[in-house]
Amino acid sequence: MDRASKPAAQPNGIHHLAIGEIVVSALNDGVHQVSFDDLVADDHPACVEAHLGEHRAAPPWLTINCFLLRCGGKLALIDAGFGPKTPFVGGLLRNLSATGAITEDIDLILMTHMHPDHESGLLDPDGKAIFPNAELVLHEKELAYWRDEAAMASASEEAKGDFILARKALSAYGDRLRTAREDEVLPGVRAMPTPGHTPGHTAWLIESAGDALLVWGDIIHFPGIQFAFPGSSVAFDIDRAAAVAARNKVLQFAAQERIRVGGIHLDFPAFGHVAPSGSGYRFVPEIWWPLV
Amino acid sequence: MDRASKPAAQPNGIHHLAIGEIVVSALNDGVHQVSFDDLVADDHPACVEAHLGEHRAAPPWLTINCFLLRCGGKLALIDAGFGPKTPFVGGLLRNLSATGAITEDIDLILMTHMHPDHESGLLDPDGKAIFPNAELVLHEKELAYWRDEAAMASASEEAKGDFILARKALSAYGDRLRTAREDEVLPGVRAMPTPGHTPGHTAWLIESAGDALLVWGDIIHFPGIQFAFPGSSVAFDIDRAAAVAARNKVLQFAAQERIRVGGIHLDFPAFGHVAPSGSGYRFVPEIWWPLV
Repeated sequence: MDRASKPAAQPNGIHHLAIGEIVVSALNDGVHQVSFDDLVADDHPACVEAHLGEHRAAPPWLTINCFLLRCGGKLALIDAGFGPKTPFVGGLLRNLSATGAITEDIDLILMTHMHPDHESGLLDPDGKAIFPNAELVLHEKELAYWRDEAAMASASEEAKGDFILARKALSAYGDRLRTAREDEVLPGVRAMPTPGHTPGHTAWLIESAGDALLVWGDIIHFPGIQFAFPGSSVAFDIDRAAAVAARNKVLQFAAQERIRVGGIHLDFPAFGHVAPSGSGYRFVPEIWWPLV
Repeated sequence: MDRASKPAAQPNGIHHLAIGEIVVSALNDGVHQVSFDDLVADDHPACVEAHLGEHRAAPPWLTINCFLLRCGGKLALIDAGFGPKTPFVGGLLRNLSATGAITEDIDLILMTHMHPDHESGLLDPDGKAIFPNAELVLHEKELAYWRDEAAMASASEEAKGDFILARKALSAYGDRLRTAREDEVLPGVRAMPTPGHTPGHTAWLIESAGDALLVWGDIIHFPGIQFAFPGSSVAFDIDRAAAVAARNKVLQFAAQERIRVGGIHLDFPAFGHVAPSGSGYRFVPEIWWPLV
């Protein structure tokens, strides 16, 4: 090796956080290029302006993370990432492997919702389940929505594609589907419905030995916009008003309870706190901790 | 291995960022517990209140990073960390090794200043140079200060300890000391004096192929306080007024030039942009990039 040559690869995107007896590991799936014009609701141009004005150098890339839970002898994943759609995403399996786990080890996959950047990683290129032993857990309303023929018929052409992909995943895991409402799915782990972005959009609340972490899905897509402007929305919120209400409710809960949060689309390692700031909130990233 | 047991270690704290032809790698040395009471100037209690109010959950730990530069066939380190003072710091050597480099490979060590959390990592427990082939580069005023008998005589007992440690390091690297002012020390790498925290406190400006990065030392100790309140200070600024002036100048420069920054005490991986915000600034972390 030329000792001064460019490194061949970035180190693995893995960061462990102990929540009482449960170890939660953020696993970076990658980044996906998006556009503010496509994503932010057209009735909120001021938010984009403010973002571009203050965070002007931030590129419009969306971070995608998954979270691994080691909990009571079980391994659970929250979401499964985008799969290898581009060279920039699909890192979940490499990072999972680097934690010492194999796909056969995963007992449960806790879905925040069934959009492609969260569920495409469930299947291999042949459409087979990548996690052969995992139960796929989603909110009962999420399962009903993606199976709803009327909903699919009234969807845009692009959204129809989401239905097709979601149904493929539901089919591949068809004999081990499990629905959740607000019950515990593992000791200390339970669903917190946050409907709006999708009808069964779900955050997962992890509590152990007096500590807690709330892992959310698409409560925040753009940290630079939506903490400060929680009323802003994105084009693919299925019910924008409900999505805004869910965002406000979750941010208020996290700030009031001073609970740590993890977010699928927060910048890796994606752990931190929510603090009130002005008329909105700000994200306070958890310091990078060198020990587990 | 019990597949669901707690991971034995956190992954390495290494993140690469390409600046044109130069690869800059943030290497986490660790975290060091401090106290807001000790550190923030007693004439700025409002800043601490604001920090504790908004970032109330952030623990008073100081991140310590070093930066490795691969530049024109040479390897350079910016600062050498605290050494294994506690179980929480001294990670530099492990992280350096994990990049594929050995201590003998380091050609230059570019010091921001000679405080113990930046220079203790230069020496092994026997007081010998850990980097046997490295030139130690510091600003000529920094070198003069730590060798100044009058300055040491007038220092507090605690600060006298800093003089003793700095002199040990200067002695161990005595035959390969090199002073810098504003000249290039490597192609595309030059010193930017930021005096105040120490008399020869120096940031390092890295420019290559139209891209740039400014790596600073103790411009910011507490990201949650000093971006928003650049007039706040710390007890161990040797010249507080000059330190505040340097902070204002550097933050204004970074914001106006839209230049990326890296900071020894910014949360790992410690790369981002500075944006104006209210009467101060805010830090916009660089998104975690999965490729080099």
